[in-house]
Amino acid sequence: MSFTLGELSRLVQGQLHGDPSIVICGTAIIRDAQAGQLTLADSDKALAKLATCGAAAVMTRVGMDTGSLPRIEVEDVSSCFARVTEVFRPRQQEGQRGVSTQAFVDPTAVIGSGATIFPGAYVGAGVVIGDGVTLHPGVCVMAGSSIGDHTTIFANAVLYEGTDVGRHVIIHASAVLGAYGFGYNSSTGRHLLSEQSGYVKVEDHVEIGAGATIDRGTYGATVIGEGTKIDNQVMVAHNCHIGRHNLLCSQVGIAGSCTTGDYVVMAGQVGIGDHLNIGHKTILGAKAGVMSDVPSDVIYVGIPATPHREQMQKQAAWSKLPEMRKEFKTLKLEVERLKSLLSAPSQTQTQSSSSEDDSCGDNAVSDAA
Amino acid sequence: MSFTLGELSRLVQGQLHGDPSIVICGTAIIRDAQAGQLTLADSDKALAKLATCGAAAVMTRVGMDTGSLPRIEVEDVSSCFARVTEVFRPRQQEGQRGVSTQAFVDPTAVIGSGATIFPGAYVGAGVVIGDGVTLHPGVCVMAGSSIGDHTTIFANAVLYEGTDVGRHVIIHASAVLGAYGFGYNSSTGRHLLSEQSGYVKVEDHVEIGAGATIDRGTYGATVIGEGTKIDNQVMVAHNCHIGRHNLLCSQVGIAGSCTTGDYVVMAGQVGIGDHLNIGHKTILGAKAGVMSDVPSDVIYVGIPATPHREQMQKQAAWSKLPEMRKEFKTLKLEVERLKSLLSAPSQTQTQSSSSEDDSCGDNAVSDAA
Amino acid sequence: MSFTLGELSRLVQGQLHGDPSIVICGTAIIRDAQAGQLTLADSDKALAKLATCGAAAVMTRVGMDTGSLPRIEVEDVSSCFARVTEVFRPRQQEGQRGVSTQAFVDPTAVIGSGATIFPGAYVGAGVVIGDGVTLHPGVCVMAGSSIGDHTTIFANAVLYEGTDVGRHVIIHASAVLGAYGFGYNSSTGRHLLSEQSGYVKVEDHVEIGAGATIDRGTYGATVIGEGTKIDNQVMVAHNCHIGRHNLLCSQVGIAGSCTTGDYVVMAGQVGIGDHLNIGHKTILGAKAGVMSDVPSDVIYVGIPATPHREQMQKQAAWSKLPEMRKEFKTLKLEVERLKSLLSAPSQTQTQSSSSEDDSCGDNAVSDAA
Repeated sequence: MSFTLGELSRLVQGQLHGDPSIVICGTAIIRDAQAGQLTLADSDKALAKLATCGAAAVMTRVGMDTGSLPRIEVEDVSSCFARVTEVFRPRQQEGQRGVSTQAFVDPTAVIGSGATIFPGAYVGAGVVIGDGVTLHPGVCVMAGSSIGDHTTIFANAVLYEGTDVGRHVIIHASAVLGAYGFGYNSSTGRHLLSEQSGYVKVEDHVEIGAGATIDRGTYGATVIGEGTKIDNQVMVAHNCHIGRHNLLCSQVGIAGSCTTGDYVVMAGQVGIGDHLNIGHKTILGAKAGVMSDVPSDVIYVGIPATPHREQMQKQAAWSKLPEMRKEFKTLKLEVERLKSLLSAPSQTQTQSSSSEDDSCGDNAVSDAA
Repeated sequence: MSFTLGELSRLVQGQLHGDPSIVICGTAIIRDAQAGQLTLADSDKALAKLATCGAAAVMTRVGMDTGSLPRIEVEDVSSCFARVTEVFRPRQQEGQRGVSTQAFVDPTAVIGSGATIFPGAYVGAGVVIGDGVTLHPGVCVMAGSSIGDHTTIFANAVLYEGTDVGRHVIIHASAVLGAYGFGYNSSTGRHLLSEQSGYVKVEDHVEIGAGATIDRGTYGATVIGEGTKIDNQVMVAHNCHIGRHNLLCSQVGIAGSCTTGDYVVMAGQVGIGDHLNIGHKTILGAKAGVMSDVPSDVIYVGIPATPHREQMQKQAAWSKLPEMRKEFKTLKLEVERLKSLLSAPSQTQTQSSSSEDDSCGDNAVSDAA
Repeated sequence: MSFTLGELSRLVQGQLHGDPSIVICGTAIIRDAQAGQLTLADSDKALAKLATCGAAAVMTRVGMDTGSLPRIEVEDVSSCFARVTEVFRPRQQEGQRGVSTQAFVDPTAVIGSGATIFPGAYVGAGVVIGDGVTLHPGVCVMAGSSIGDHTTIFANAVLYEGTDVGRHVIIHASAVLGAYGFGYNSSTGRHLLSEQSGYVKVEDHVEIGAGATIDRGTYGATVIGEGTKIDNQVMVAHNCHIGRHNLLCSQVGIAGSCTTGDYVVMAGQVGIGDHLNIGHKTILGAKAGVMSDVPSDVIYVGIPATPHREQMQKQAAWSKLPEMRKEFKTLKLEVERLKSLLSAPSQTQTQSSSSEDDSCGDNAVSDAA
């Protein structure tokens, strides 16, 4: 399949700079772009890479200079490039409309208008599904849960009983909301499961990644605040209260009863101990291990997590450690040598006084002469 | 919805200290409690926090003093508080009874009395399901597996063929038992999958968290010992033999052929190398990286994991490292200076002897006078 | 159930060294082997352990010497031992043949010959399923995906729309391919999801572990190269291009837009920052945190990841750090002492000159006499 650069430019109502008859056979990002393909550049950093890129043409923001490389200028590079990409790789639409007869919907459940429920989905007793909600195949929504309007839940995600999901939420495949918290009474020598009567509350515009797990509260809610985005395989334990507009990257683990402020960012594989509080707008570096509260507006990294600058100093010293250790041994020997040099001060005295005798003796002799 | 403190006290047959007419509109843990709510305090630590808590009343153990704050005294605070909580947020019960016609049950499978199998569950050939077992929607139990009495398996969990699960076990949503071990013969330049004829054996009273994965043994069983509790997203690799009453916290990863003793505790994100043995009652701190066997009754932390005390000393030294490095540079210069001072002893001599000449010269002159 | 050693030897056409009438009641690996059981030893390391093993007999490669312990010699120890193991624990075969009437297959989907589709599987619009493919219960293959010949997908795995899977691929339970990338435009104070029009491409002979997640590209493909094996709970983010024959161990996390060469090995819980490139045949040690590009043919470990030898030196110095710190304090005092010894050269002068005066005085007196 191929199109001319002119055709693609018209498709996105772009401004073409270059030969409209150039034949384009596909699209690719700069890293992968090959001869005959259209790529995109929406930053100066990207522009710089164009030179070493095999693409036949590029899509850019209006006013970006790509030199001799033919370009299509558009306002929204990202969506226009996606549209052209789709021309070469058309999207197939699922056939499902409305509620599938191969889904299980409890007679006591309430389904909003325009909801789509795929085959194999399960909707339990007393569940309330909002308007325009989509439940993909194998989704399990247990009794008493509610799902707000225009929320999408992808295949095989599981919502335990009483889960409360807001509007315009996206929950990805195999995510699990509301499993039991990891709390036990071990006084008897056996681990007896603690009370598990709580639930999970997800506020509006939240996104939860594939395979992420968010445990229910002990009595009340584990809360994910409005607009917060959670990546794949993140773990949020029981009773946590995650603030608004957080970004929790993949494989982050947050132990029980933690709280975070708004606009917190946690990079990949961060771990947070239980009952800790993270301030607003704080950033935690990849693999950070947080063992105490963290204030607002700071960048913490390392295990245990400490301020970024501090950690950089430690890292610098750490990287010099073997060398420093060598020098240290040398220095110890050096000091030993100095000590031995200074350990016989009396002897130095003797020498100087003996030379005094000589000189005075000379005078005595000359006097005697 | 609201109740009087008196009504709630009677509900749990508690002993009321305070005005029974106080109106309660909900329950919350101390951290979240607001005006008009009932909270709970079952430890001195919790009691201390009550002062700064907005709750209208508190549920405590018999004999705990909450000062002026009205309280309901009960024997079992946790279950009584859960009961009151449920009054404000009633539990919805699933409608499913017995084996759903929308579940798939192989004709050769044997189902115990009182078992509940939800729509969309799959029970394969020759599977044996015990009495009072519950299989939630989308659970897949493959051929030849057996599940002991009163075990509950939540939605979309998967048991590969031949999995052997004990009694009173809880397996949470999306957990996977019995996938292939990560073992390959790579001698040909391609990675050829090793033998995968083993299975997973889960003993009685085990709990396995959401999204946890436990791989089958190569020929025999990967074993999870009686009473052991495994949190969400834990990985236990092929041929491991996990002891009894272990606590494996979220995102722990245990490589192939490891063994653990009884009552081992691993905090979040711990990693264990393959073929290692962890002793009884040993505790591994969060994010510990274990690269060799660990004895019994110890606390190990860090990467590589070493005894806790040792690690604390290292951490202390590490935190002082940049400062130490500065001081070290100063010290080197200091020693250099000392060396130069001591490197010219003869010169110091000359000076002193010349001053002697002067003094003696004076005497000579006076003599000459 | 029991068999004689002779019967088991004939079963695998082995060469028996020992009494054929010995009764064998089961099989086990050396670690677990007990009286009456057959074990296996296919390496010298394993042979060494036989002495302390309770097994009644052992299966070995032809020509291996097991001393007095009866043995069955075979060419392929692993498969023969598996075969004997199966005699004691027969495999149950699933009853499913062909496409289950309890699976959902969109009328526009194309199913290859000899494909097996279990109850509860979902096959979306325009999906193409190759010959001999197996889709286990609850597998969800969304619209426009294609799956190559002889690929097996285990229960509840999810392929988002447009996923492109090659031949002879194994995808384990609950794995998720094609979820949205974790990319947002946050300029407005809200996190707006970036373009998500890409997909996941899995080449031939790849294996993907249980609960692993591989996100779609932004516009094009996230690629898993031929023959690469991915363990459970691994995360591969959007736009990554993983090379051929990689081994990615459990809980590895790779951030967006990374590339790896061929034959790369990442041990458990490794983390890779975004937009990084890992060279051919490079090995990353367990828990390594990669923060910059890594060349080919190296072994990197640690956080941040550095060459293995370098890291070992740092670890050695690090383990000596507390001791070094003590010695350092001592040395500082030592140098202080030396300084004080050398800090009063003038005073030493005074003493010596005064003694000169005395001596000269004596001469003067003697002169005066």
